[in-house]
Amino acid sequence: MTGPIAVVCLSGGLDSCVTASIAAQDHEVALLHVNYGQRTETRELMSFVEVADFFDADKRLVLNLNFLGIIGGSSLTDDSRAVPEGDLSRRDIPNTYVPFRNANILSAAVSWAEVLGASSVYIGAVEEDGSGYPDCREVFFDAFGKAVAAGTRPESAIRIVTPVIHMSKADIVRTGADLGTPFELTWSCYREEEIACGKCDSCLLRLKAFAEAGIPDPISYRQA
Amino acid sequence: MTGPIAVVCLSGGLDSCVTASIAAQDHEVALLHVNYGQRTETRELMSFVEVADFFDADKRLVLNLNFLGIIGGSSLTDDSRAVPEGDLSRRDIPNTYVPFRNANILSAAVSWAEVLGASSVYIGAVEEDGSGYPDCREVFFDAFGKAVAAGTRPESAIRIVTPVIHMSKADIVRTGADLGTPFELTWSCYREEEIACGKCDSCLLRLKAFAEAGIPDPISYRQA
Repeated sequence: MTGPIAVVCLSGGLDSCVTASIAAQDHEVALLHVNYGQRTETRELMSFVEVADFFDADKRLVLNLNFLGIIGGSSLTDDSRAVPEGDLSRRDIPNTYVPFRNANILSAAVSWAEVLGASSVYIGAVEEDGSGYPDCREVFFDAFGKAVAAGTRPESAIRIVTPVIHMSKADIVRTGADLGTPFELTWSCYREEEIACGKCDSCLLRLKAFAEAGIPDPISYRQA
Repeated sequence: MTGPIAVVCLSGGLDSCVTASIAAQDHEVALLHVNYGQRTETRELMSFVEVADFFDADKRLVLNLNFLGIIGGSSLTDDSRAVPEGDLSRRDIPNTYVPFRNANILSAAVSWAEVLGASSVYIGAVEEDGSGYPDCREVFFDAFGKAVAAGTRPESAIRIVTPVIHMSKADIVRTGADLGTPFELTWSCYREEEIACGKCDSCLLRLKAFAEAGIPDPISYRQA
């Protein structure tokens, strides 16, 4: 993998891993993972390391953004709030929303990109997966990209790239399968760290995606 | 101090302290300080606590963003790079620039503001102080404000407010004097934590400002 450097925000989940596969087609990928006090932090970190090894990434960085957990406001980082049962028909913003999380992750990614001389920052956000997070929408990434252009060195020219933003989850699975994405190394569950629960929003979306794509999901579930 | 809540980014320096005085005129101020591995972290934190006590702020938060130091790229966070002697005629971006620092600070501030239900985030950036940081310009804050509008809950409506952005440093000193800003509690030096050096960019700008305003600077300097 050669070419210009792309920083890829890699949670260790399905979408970010396929995003890394897309970026790696024509970039050297610099892989960034953030811990922010999320419940499944340890399991996600394990996926990150294994995926980074898969991509043979020399440039990899794990950052502590656990101030997001200190600020609070989300069931994803606050053990006193329950992660709700998944309900894909719900239209409001669920309590797993971490306020302005993606801006914090992208800001750190852009700082690193500027130091590395990277040409782009890839993030695997998906607008139409029904989760309703305001900072997962293309309108946010477009606006943030303009803030990056205005707030970095003129010669930096760092683009924010969201290659899967308008894909369905099934399309993401198909794309990943075509590119050889190591699905077996990824982790999506919001609740567990041993076996995916199969019931939270994130598990439901993943299961539905593999089913629609007609591709077997290589990971195990407690209940599916 | 009552009214809507304003999150104020408070480094402990002159500009942010005057910004807090401005915000406190018609807001309850929620004071945010970030440690990011800057050389004078301990001294800045002391100023923050003293200024927060001055404003009698119940809502105060110190966050660890020292991943900025880990990412590197600045003499302000990297002990192997010297902070240059000040030269106010220089036009390039100095090596004290921490890549995209203000986006990281503002992102954390907006996350907190959304949890608190605050109406605004105040930051004491100054465009025309000659430092040349791209993320200190109004064009950046305007663009970032649009990213905030796009990336937070629709009901949040958090504004980014930069009340001193187009003031000269002397005007900031005059404004602070009018509002009773506790200048004696503030810290500006980039280099030292005991007595301000009087020679770095930040000290030179501060000294010039007080001189132009015709108001005595209550802090001591090693060399002025």
